[in-house]
Amino acid sequence: MAKDMTLLWGSGSPPCWRVMIALEEKNLQGYNQKLLDFAKGDHKSPEVMAMNPRGQLPAFKCGKNVLNESLAACMYLENQFKSQGNKLIPDCPAEQAMMYQRMFEGLTFSQKMGDVIYYTYKVPEGERHDSAVKRNREALAAEIKLWEGYLEKGSGSFLAGKTFSLADVVVYPSIAYLFRFQLCEERYPKLAAYYNSLKVRPSIKASWPPTWLDTHGPEMLHDI
Amino acid sequence: MAKDMTLLWGSGSPPCWRVMIALEEKNLQGYNQKLLDFAKGDHKSPEVMAMNPRGQLPAFKCGKNVLNESLAACMYLENQFKSQGNKLIPDCPAEQAMMYQRMFEGLTFSQKMGDVIYYTYKVPEGERHDSAVKRNREALAAEIKLWEGYLEKGSGSFLAGKTFSLADVVVYPSIAYLFRFQLCEERYPKLAAYYNSLKVRPSIKASWPPTWLDTHGPEMLHDI
Repeated sequence: MAKDMTLLWGSGSPPCWRVMIALEEKNLQGYNQKLLDFAKGDHKSPEVMAMNPRGQLPAFKCGKNVLNESLAACMYLENQFKSQGNKLIPDCPAEQAMMYQRMFEGLTFSQKMGDVIYYTYKVPEGERHDSAVKRNREALAAEIKLWEGYLEKGSGSFLAGKTFSLADVVVYPSIAYLFRFQLCEERYPKLAAYYNSLKVRPSIKASWPPTWLDTHGPEMLHDI
Repeated sequence: MAKDMTLLWGSGSPPCWRVMIALEEKNLQGYNQKLLDFAKGDHKSPEVMAMNPRGQLPAFKCGKNVLNESLAACMYLENQFKSQGNKLIPDCPAEQAMMYQRMFEGLTFSQKMGDVIYYTYKVPEGERHDSAVKRNREALAAEIKLWEGYLEKGSGSFLAGKTFSLADVVVYPSIAYLFRFQLCEERYPKLAAYYNSLKVRPSIKASWPPTWLDTHGPEMLHDI
């Protein structure tokens, strides 16, 4: 089946990384894939636009079916390959509810992170305001504290409890992104422990962003 | 089961409406519910904050399980009540892929709509720019054209094909919102036909925002 799949991706992009983790978890190695470069504008290339008219990565196809939205791809892969690889949606209603809740809260988290990290990319020069930068950073700090609290109060090592689930697939890349941008491990010990413990999980290790392997990210979040 | 559920909601809010449509589709009428008023700041009240610390509506509980994120609630209800009411996730892989893809694209649609309609609410006075308003409106217009095209090229009356699915549950409220804010029906005939045909669907009729029944919305999107 993996041979029928094609993924165009960018290194470090949380949405791309989610799909790659899900593919690994479902034992779907060996798919066709191509690493593209956001900095060169590859995501607006004709090759990507033909698969994803939004000009975004990932661009992902399973056979003839297009699943460019990362959560759509993850949900679809889990549904189509239920008994293959690791089960990513818990059966227990309480864990399942928690999984869905955290998974979708993860999109808010990811957006607040993007509002800080990509502010100058997203907002044209004449429209930038220090007050907006300050507000965005405060919103991100509040969001990070929320997730630190979830892990502190949680009943297991994972976001939805005792087993790795789609909540982790969706949110882990954003948490890794925070630390890539130098979030202080001492200030957020639960997030740091979660981040470090999952680094060695085979699906995550195998899909670790290649551009992150031998470099440090900017110190953008150190004082958050 | 519905007696164990509690929904705090606001009239017209697409996320609240999604949950209400899903509850109707799954024959889960009779849940505890309370209509709150965003204009009075009810969504920041202690009652809401106790259920949803983000201070947002919907706030939704199934027994002890919290599902405040609207897509989380919809996915959970479909999974827990698979054989009750209408099936909302198609079995056919092609339709299922399309359903997930459209469902998650619906979040982008909803966000672009919010960027236009709630600009003055979201952006403090000193940070507002005509150039941003123009850009947001252009982005929304492009998004609406995309959805008009999806319906034009689609193989059925619904967003994921021949049957009503979670894609419709998630996206219909945003499309209704566009027309509430006076989007021109003649300019977007497929969207208008979709909007009007689903108005009479029992789940949608039963959950129609009460504040919309006898009033027109502002003409904000008429020239888009």
